[in-house]
This record gives sequence, C-alpha cells and structure tokens, in this order.
Amino acid sequence: MNTYASRLLENAVNELSRLPGVGKKTALRLALHLLKKEPAVSEALGNAIIQLRNEIKFCKVCHNLSDSEICEICASPKRNESLICVVEDIRDVMAIENTGQYNGLYHILGGIISPMDGIGPADLNIESLVNRIQKGNVSEVIMALSTTIEGDTTNFYIYKRLKETRIAISTIARGISVGDELEYADEITLGRSILNRLPYENTLDS
Amino acid sequence: MNTYASRLLENAVNELSRLPGVGKKTALRLALHLLKKEPAVSEALGNAIIQLRNEIKFCKVCHNLSDSEICEICASPKRNESLICVVEDIRDVMAIENTGQYNGLYHILGGIISPMDGIGPADLNIESLVNRIQKGNVSEVIMALSTTIEGDTTNFYIYKRLKETRIAISTIARGISVGDELEYADEITLGRSILNRLPYENTLDS
Repeated sequence: MNTYASRLLENAVNELSRLPGVGKKTALRLALHLLKKEPAVSEALGNAIIQLRNEIKFCKVCHNLSDSEICEICASPKRNESLICVVEDIRDVMAIENTGQYNGLYHILGGIISPMDGIGPADLNIESLVNRIQKGNVSEVIMALSTTIEGDTTNFYIYKRLKETRIAISTIARGISVGDELEYADEITLGRSILNRLPYENTLDS
Repeated sequence: MNTYASRLLENAVNELSRLPGVGKKTALRLALHLLKKEPAVSEALGNAIIQLRNEIKFCKVCHNLSDSEICEICASPKRNESLICVVEDIRDVMAIENTGQYNGLYHILGGIISPMDGIGPADLNIESLVNRIQKGNVSEVIMALSTTIEGDTTNFYIYKRLKETRIAISTIARGISVGDELEYADEITLGRSILNRLPYENTLDS
C-alpha cells in the first residue's frame, strides 16, 4: 500500500520536502495542516509560490528583486547615487535597510566566489558592477560581504577589478558585536577589532 | 520602502509564514530558494498544494485520506475486517502501517477529546464508529490513541459508548512512555504494543 494513503498527499509531501530544511515528516505535518484549513489557504499559498517565480523581475541596475524593471531603491530620488554597497544577496539588502543607517544604492552579486561550489566570478553580477562604476557618478564602493574565506576572496577579486578605476573602496567594519562579551569573542575578530580601533570621539555621536 | 523589495515576494513570504513552525525568516529563505530554482519547481509545488486541498477525499468508512470514496485499506480484500484500530489522525495510520504488524482496518477520529481546545465528542468521528460496530462483522476494537490525558479521556468515552455492544475493546500495550506521541514512536515499540494489546478493563485501575 501507498504509505500516504493518497497519491495527492504523497505528491504534496514530496514537493514540500524538496524545500531546504524540510524533511518528509515536516512536509507531512505541513500538508496535513493545510488539509485542516480552508481550501482558500492552500489556494493562496500555491498561487503565491507560482506567481512569485513566474512574475518576479530583477532590477536591471542593481539586480535586486523587483516588481518592475528598476527596483524601488534605484528609482528613488532620495537615495545617494554616488554610493554603491556590494552585497551577496537580497537578504543582505533587507538587513542593511533595516538598520536605517544607509542611504546609498546597492549591487547584488547573486552569490560569492566559491570554487568548492563551482561558482566563479563569471557566475556573479560583477561585470555589471564594473560597468556602473565606469559610467561615473559613483564616488565610493562599500563591500559588505560575509567575513568568510569566500567573502574575502570575492572582496579581493572585486578590489583588483576596480583598482584601475581609482574609485574609493571600503569594507564594512569588522569587530565585536554590540552586546557581545569580550571573553567569548573569537581571536580573529578580537584581533581585528584591536587593529582597527577607532578614536573614541567617533563612536560618541552614533 | 517595502521591506521585501517586491510585493510578489512579500505575498509569498506572508503565505509561507502561515505554515506551522515557519517564521518570517524561514519563509523568506524558502521563497529565495524557490527563486533560485527552475520555474517548474515552484509550479509543481504550488499545484501540488492546491490540488491536495481541492481534490482529496476522505474514506466514507474509516475517514482516512483517500483518492477515492473508499480508501485502499478498507477496499483491500486482504485486510481482516473484524478488527478496527481507532486512531487520532492519519499520521497514526501511517505509523502503524509501517510496523507491518497490523492487518485489520482503521477508524480515524480526526482528533481527541480536549475540552481545553474546545473539542468534544461531537467533533470527532465517534458516531460513525458506533454505526460500524452495530452493523456487526467486527469482533474487536483496538484503541491506539496517544498516552496523554486527552487520549485516556477519549479511550474512556469510547469504551463507555461501546460497552453495551459487548464488543471486545483493547488498547495497545503501554510500552510507549506516558506523554509520547504515536507518530514519533519507533516501529519496534509500536509493533510490539499492537501485538501485546490488553483488555481495556485491565488498564483502568492503573
């Protein structure tokens, strides 16, 4: 006998369990949850998923997700067009937007250089970043990638690509997180935050 | 600005985060995962969810999920029709089927009596169980509910309802520790507890 008593259920469980972090048991729990709810709930979820993939666009300038050709950030007249913050993916844009501390534009690479995963520079949106900078108007590029070997590699690659444009390139500060206790910080982070220490006055107004 | 850069993404995240155990961050991770995959993946997932809810049927005899009017178990000539195993929901049927120790039929209550959640006997498939037994052909009812207070209450309620039919009522052996839920029990324990079921009276004084 079919384990799931129904081919429809089996199909739904199989599809749900393809999602990252969702195993067969979780998928079954989700499917049975949907069966207990109104049909409209499943309808809304199913259509939202299909529409998302079929109708979403990527901003032609920064590669951010968007409902139109140019994303809201790139289209906004209130943003500082001379600043470009380079990030790995759209979640980083959201994280930085949530801080309320950044008013420039973004450039989403769509990943980081990772030979282990077969991702090279050609797979990322690096060429379009170079083009944006060559067009002028940009005064500074802020690298905001993860502090991993892959992130550092990508930083360095982009740094070398942009070196001849003589544009200012900075990276976001690495150091001890707010609220962290010194004794639990790892040695590399702590070491860097000592090397990159700031005048105390600079931290007072933030 | 819209946190998700896109109304389509926001919509998908909102719908996904209605699933149990899925928060906004997980929902976003799932949505971005789908965006990285082929459109066919989202299409298959979305349609599987919609079809599941719209086309699934419940077996008219045992209330199991089914693709047809009568489920595969009830329709099978190989099953012992004189045994009915009473369970809370379809996951318990799957768990018992996986043991390979049971060859009778099932009756799915669709829940257990739980005054705290506003679930009374009238909300469960108890009347149809009584009808099945009054029709004859059944020699034994095996109670296989979770060993919780609600499970015990439901056991006792059904025991009282069926007492006048003079049918043999047993419960699966309490090899499963108190507080454990059936679906997470290992197959050997669950299989043994079906083989070693006890007359319900024997468990009343414990």
